[in-house]
Amino acid sequence: MNKQITDGRFIGCDSEYDCADIVIFGAGFDGTTSYRPGARFGGKVIREESYGLETYSPYLDRDLTDVKIFDSGELELPFGNTEKVLDIVYSSAKQILSDDKIPVLLGGEHLVTLPAVRACLEKYSGLHMIHFDAHADLREEYLGEKLSHACVIRRCWELLGDNRIYSFAIRSGTRQEFEFAKKHLSPQINADVPVYLTIDLDVLDPSEFPATGTPEAGGLRFNELREKIKTICETCNVIGADLVEYSPPYDTGGISAAAAGKLLRELLLSLNTQSKGIKKHEKL
Amino acid sequence: MNKQITDGRFIGCDSEYDCADIVIFGAGFDGTTSYRPGARFGGKVIREESYGLETYSPYLDRDLTDVKIFDSGELELPFGNTEKVLDIVYSSAKQILSDDKIPVLLGGEHLVTLPAVRACLEKYSGLHMIHFDAHADLREEYLGEKLSHACVIRRCWELLGDNRIYSFAIRSGTRQEFEFAKKHLSPQINADVPVYLTIDLDVLDPSEFPATGTPEAGGLRFNELREKIKTICETCNVIGADLVEYSPPYDTGGISAAAAGKLLRELLLSLNTQSKGIKKHEKL
Amino acid sequence: MNKQITDGRFIGCDSEYDCADIVIFGAGFDGTTSYRPGARFGGKVIREESYGLETYSPYLDRDLTDVKIFDSGELELPFGNTEKVLDIVYSSAKQILSDDKIPVLLGGEHLVTLPAVRACLEKYSGLHMIHFDAHADLREEYLGEKLSHACVIRRCWELLGDNRIYSFAIRSGTRQEFEFAKKHLSPQINADVPVYLTIDLDVLDPSEFPATGTPEAGGLRFNELREKIKTICETCNVIGADLVEYSPPYDTGGISAAAAGKLLRELLLSLNTQSKGIKKHEKL
Amino acid sequence: MNKQITDGRFIGCDSEYDCADIVIFGAGFDGTTSYRPGARFGGKVIREESYGLETYSPYLDRDLTDVKIFDSGELELPFGNTEKVLDIVYSSAKQILSDDKIPVLLGGEHLVTLPAVRACLEKYSGLHMIHFDAHADLREEYLGEKLSHACVIRRCWELLGDNRIYSFAIRSGTRQEFEFAKKHLSPQINADVPVYLTIDLDVLDPSEFPATGTPEAGGLRFNELREKIKTICETCNVIGADLVEYSPPYDTGGISAAAAGKLLRELLLSLNTQSKGIKKHEKL
Amino acid sequence: MNKQITDGRFIGCDSEYDCADIVIFGAGFDGTTSYRPGARFGGKVIREESYGLETYSPYLDRDLTDVKIFDSGELELPFGNTEKVLDIVYSSAKQILSDDKIPVLLGGEHLVTLPAVRACLEKYSGLHMIHFDAHADLREEYLGEKLSHACVIRRCWELLGDNRIYSFAIRSGTRQEFEFAKKHLSPQINADVPVYLTIDLDVLDPSEFPATGTPEAGGLRFNELREKIKTICETCNVIGADLVEYSPPYDTGGISAAAAGKLLRELLLSLNTQSKGIKKHEKL
Amino acid sequence: MNKQITDGRFIGCDSEYDCADIVIFGAGFDGTTSYRPGARFGGKVIREESYGLETYSPYLDRDLTDVKIFDSGELELPFGNTEKVLDIVYSSAKQILSDDKIPVLLGGEHLVTLPAVRACLEKYSGLHMIHFDAHADLREEYLGEKLSHACVIRRCWELLGDNRIYSFAIRSGTRQEFEFAKKHLSPQINADVPVYLTIDLDVLDPSEFPATGTPEAGGLRFNELREKIKTICETCNVIGADLVEYSPPYDTGGISAAAAGKLLRELLLSLNTQSKGIKKHEKL
Repeated sequence: MNKQITDGRFIGCDSEYDCADIVIFGAGFDGTTSYRPGARFGGKVIREESYGLETYSPYLDRDLTDVKIFDSGELELPFGNTEKVLDIVYSSAKQILSDDKIPVLLGGEHLVTLPAVRACLEKYSGLHMIHFDAHADLREEYLGEKLSHACVIRRCWELLGDNRIYSFAIRSGTRQEFEFAKKHLSPQINADVPVYLTIDLDVLDPSEFPATGTPEAGGLRFNELREKIKTICETCNVIGADLVEYSPPYDTGGISAAAAGKLLRELLLSLNTQSKGIKKHEKL
Repeated sequence: MNKQITDGRFIGCDSEYDCADIVIFGAGFDGTTSYRPGARFGGKVIREESYGLETYSPYLDRDLTDVKIFDSGELELPFGNTEKVLDIVYSSAKQILSDDKIPVLLGGEHLVTLPAVRACLEKYSGLHMIHFDAHADLREEYLGEKLSHACVIRRCWELLGDNRIYSFAIRSGTRQEFEFAKKHLSPQINADVPVYLTIDLDVLDPSEFPATGTPEAGGLRFNELREKIKTICETCNVIGADLVEYSPPYDTGGISAAAAGKLLRELLLSLNTQSKGIKKHEKL
Repeated sequence: MNKQITDGRFIGCDSEYDCADIVIFGAGFDGTTSYRPGARFGGKVIREESYGLETYSPYLDRDLTDVKIFDSGELELPFGNTEKVLDIVYSSAKQILSDDKIPVLLGGEHLVTLPAVRACLEKYSGLHMIHFDAHADLREEYLGEKLSHACVIRRCWELLGDNRIYSFAIRSGTRQEFEFAKKHLSPQINADVPVYLTIDLDVLDPSEFPATGTPEAGGLRFNELREKIKTICETCNVIGADLVEYSPPYDTGGISAAAAGKLLRELLLSLNTQSKGIKKHEKL
Repeated sequence: MNKQITDGRFIGCDSEYDCADIVIFGAGFDGTTSYRPGARFGGKVIREESYGLETYSPYLDRDLTDVKIFDSGELELPFGNTEKVLDIVYSSAKQILSDDKIPVLLGGEHLVTLPAVRACLEKYSGLHMIHFDAHADLREEYLGEKLSHACVIRRCWELLGDNRIYSFAIRSGTRQEFEFAKKHLSPQINADVPVYLTIDLDVLDPSEFPATGTPEAGGLRFNELREKIKTICETCNVIGADLVEYSPPYDTGGISAAAAGKLLRELLLSLNTQSKGIKKHEKL
Repeated sequence: MNKQITDGRFIGCDSEYDCADIVIFGAGFDGTTSYRPGARFGGKVIREESYGLETYSPYLDRDLTDVKIFDSGELELPFGNTEKVLDIVYSSAKQILSDDKIPVLLGGEHLVTLPAVRACLEKYSGLHMIHFDAHADLREEYLGEKLSHACVIRRCWELLGDNRIYSFAIRSGTRQEFEFAKKHLSPQINADVPVYLTIDLDVLDPSEFPATGTPEAGGLRFNELREKIKTICETCNVIGADLVEYSPPYDTGGISAAAAGKLLRELLLSLNTQSKGIKKHEKL
Repeated sequence: MNKQITDGRFIGCDSEYDCADIVIFGAGFDGTTSYRPGARFGGKVIREESYGLETYSPYLDRDLTDVKIFDSGELELPFGNTEKVLDIVYSSAKQILSDDKIPVLLGGEHLVTLPAVRACLEKYSGLHMIHFDAHADLREEYLGEKLSHACVIRRCWELLGDNRIYSFAIRSGTRQEFEFAKKHLSPQINADVPVYLTIDLDVLDPSEFPATGTPEAGGLRFNELREKIKTICETCNVIGADLVEYSPPYDTGGISAAAAGKLLRELLLSLNTQSKGIKKHEKL
């Protein structure tokens, strides 16, 4: 219920780039989505609908206007050329990180996480990853492709190695994926390490978040996810994050946009930034 | 699954006005709605869809056909003239109260609560208010207007004074609104006082009730709200009530109409009426 | 996220009839539906949308490809002739049972359960029934008809007798139906008896399963139902089952199809079959 | 844009039965619909949405308030029992005709035309029929049933005989149906005979009228149909009429309700009634 | 299919205010809408969806990038206070006109036309008006209000006087409105006069433009309206214009946004501006 | 209204491959779609919804059951890898052509036309192309990509050369595209040459066909397109064809599926095949 219709930016995110602690950037790519496409519009609609939100969080007693955030909008991406898309996302994340800001990426499909993780790893060699998702995304390949949303965590694992990824709330996958996870992923969250936080919004229950590529019954409640994000940001050093797989064409009642925007606000307010007077962890 | 298609009245509410204990009236106004309009159709659709319900409540073991309820339909309201609209709602509530009946108002947007509270206060000088909502609605003004759905509880507070309003399940507002609430609203429900009960249906989780002006993730479950209504009616002397902010154009699967109608049935069956052989509290 | 678009069969159900332990058959009938029709398309859409699922269940650690299931598709039914429809369903169930396979029926409206139960009773004289539903379905007649979805459990009781039916999660009905239930249905599940399991999907909360003929607020969560199915199949000898009342025209976000398909997978993987190396109970 | 929300009756149709020249009655039956059900709600929604219309027709320069019309609402029909449904429709039409009023029937599916025609034929032995439709509806049987919406004109032909039925704008059917039509239907409209006018709304182009059981591309424009109705009522003696096959669940933008209501208004204003000072044709 | 996602402005309208010949401004008000609200979002969605269009018109062989247009976005308006809203629109139009630019107003409901016409009349005393609409909008008052979308042309006539307004394609109204029109509006377009062009988009057929407050069957085709706009701009001196009554919540397939945006492009390219090297008419 | 629910094949297309004259194959690819994705489901839904159609065409007086057609279903395609997708389509078309059958391709987005044309050109060196579309699709590149739906006709022109392509009903493009078309495309259809017929369904008016990637107001009517297809098949030697850009997620009322399926039927019945006793043109 914010006073002004947004100008295309997420509410309350109107710092200049130079003085911002956090930079939002959007990668509206859904080229490898196999079931229900539309995630390409995710970031755009989250911003447009954000004027239905307040900038203040009663959960955290913090306000977006107190934090320095720049919303750089959506990247221009060549549809149909997956590798070029990933390169562009990589370069953007790289730039933001080299300017000592926290990148927050809005998907798009989950594959866009891969280049963001690569850029983060180059800065933070001890990088870990925390992963919310309904699906394991651990396939070696999918429909003959290695660069697919269904393989993205496997690709991240190839970068990060064993016991660096912690997956939450996975409830769908092949038997092979679950066996792989047991063997190679981490059984617990490690505190005090630099962490990339990736949130595939289909981790939420489809009743609370219907607008996603592959709805999977039996998911997390909004409040559960909101509290977990808060705890992670308090416990770990989150140095980059993303929200992916919001697919507006399936958001029939508009409730998914409202949930995604509110989660983004909570995430932005939970991140450790200097504008909140919190000293950042040392870079590795 | 009621046998007959309704004639425009809520199921089982076919008493004559003169012998009724409860009178339903609708105020299909949404002129100050800032986000998603449509609440004007709320009362109309709740009635139309009520033939999908039973008149019997297994939760309460009571039946609407055992209670004397008159459904007076929708008021005719001049769109675009907020003050005249509020006057008409006020007069209707006043008439119902002066005939010693309990008014149950169907919105429309939340602003219609204001004139109903004013009428109730004139009869019951010790009036308290219980308020279910996702939003605090405590702004001093909104977009330059004092008569706005976003300010309605603030306006009610001006009538009722400190510690007379108890708000449930608020999860959105400005920092100022939350501070105002801490200072001026009541921290607990007072038993044995005359109470106006206002239910902004967006207090429910958007997954269970998507069709509202400003969906706000993380709300109450239907069964939680249903039980709270029952307890309040058992504990307090509810002398007037409303259900507001159901906006049918956003009720894509029709589940909000079903929930709103069922809540209305439970509310009507929970109210203290002579036709249920329960002695009413003394008027103040 | 299964690799191939289905050929009209439910994913992973591609055994030949002769060697199958379980046979799926669809009865797309909704002729007595009084509120929101469309259940006729239920089975068809559950199959079509099943390619969004995996064949593997992480809850059960079993895979559909390890079980021998034949999906015989949809029966051809004469719209407008209820008795003929029920005859056709009866004959199909009869055939499957006489070939010592477990029939799993996809509705269609709930009335199709009646002929399936009749066929099962002829084979298993000690048959019991477990019934998930939002509605009691115990009317003696409805709109002058005895063969109506609103009477189906009453008709089944006429076949099975007292204390053979156990109903779960009923939250709507007339006072008479609830009194009938108290008198004639079973207060508990009996273990070690042959059981027909009927699941009216409106037992789920409308937020998780909006696409049904008569949505009724305050239902079960998906995970609750999923776990109950598992427990029942472990405790009782389920010799036939159905999933009914999925009405695709009201599945605006597609989440009901996803939930129904996933429940069907869990049900199929929970049934006691020889292909899972489990010895079946003796027939009575 | 009529001033008041309707009380369930079509706008401007508030005469008493006794003095009415025209009687509207609804038969919300869709039990034999083979493709997309929902026509059961047709009459109900046409009335509810009629308050978006004016009572005045600028095409005819006449106003509904000048004509004596009684809207008797929807018949109560037993779902699942086709023959009983048809009997009830027959009795209603019979009664209206015996009181020397013109029956105007709102479907429901097209099969409800059959009993109305039978009643009219008993009063007017020389009855002809004019038929607007996308589909021939001339099958001998459909899915084994003779009483099906797909056979209704064939059944009417059995009552009326050769050269008594004139079909407009048919664009779908089997080769056999088109051959039957060529042999048994009338190649032209006969003036000065008593006529039953049946309008299957799917005769309109799906772009202007999407909400029907079986949309068929390439149909009539609204204005074409409106003008044909006017001409027919001026040329023939229309002694009964119906509008069928409006299926609200598929009326996504609400434009079909607006078109159906406007056609009903034009039809009512075109009929030859004494309240318009026009002498009726002699009964046969 | 424009290359970049819009920044909230209509495609190709990125001149600075100072050098612009045309200024777009939005008045997202729908407070007096009596039937289906939502026009408040009209201007916002037309802009957002404009990136599906090209800046080049093959009909006119002109490109938006060759014209100097400034899009000032949406005005901030106080919901619920009609008079204040109209004042704000008036001031904006006044400013634009005093800077010798052509105002192009995006509604909102039709009432917003009134203050724009008032401002234009103060500059051009011989102002005429050309009016496209399904509805006459000539009521003296509506639901007790004179400031209503249903009275806007009557209010404009009070300003302009007899024979200054020419209405196109009206197909709905009361008998009194049609009589008023015959007596007071102009029977033809006058060339070579300053003209305010108001386009209520419901003049289009609901099949081509469903997303409007009160759909009215039997309207203009898109190409008819497009050509009329072109002819009017060639024949008259259009010194101000508006597009109103696009209501996005009813734009189920998104086709109305596409049509409205394309009409806006054609209108902008048809207007007589210096940047097209066309000498403007003398002001009166 | 066909008797049986389809088994995933288009109605009446149940010949064996070996004896078929025509082979339908689907390429559900939409990886370069820039605006509204979903065309990937086009072929699948056209088949599923085809049981709402008859196999008989009254326009042509022919029946699908008299023609030998094999429907091979949907190709399995690697999402995210455009080149591999095009290779697979090419191989399929090549195989069908080498077996002397007519390939009929169901998209998918328009880019899938390119490999089909390449395969046809290798068999018919004098190949021409007839192109129905709203958009010119003549860009040299789009968002940096040459393999894009927005460039497909330009790529085809590179294969075929000047004056071999005839485009119908184009109403959107850049100035450069229209200039290119004037210079390099053919101003007329050439009779008696081998022709590939490509139909981008957005050539239809959005009112009749809303479900497409980029709706463009002012298009062809269904009957216009139907008649043009008939004329072209009578006049030219159509040796391959496609129907592309049907995007089911935007088919809110289901009318686009009905139109697309009917056009496919008309196309199949219009093609010159030996099973209709028509001697094919000599191959070049």
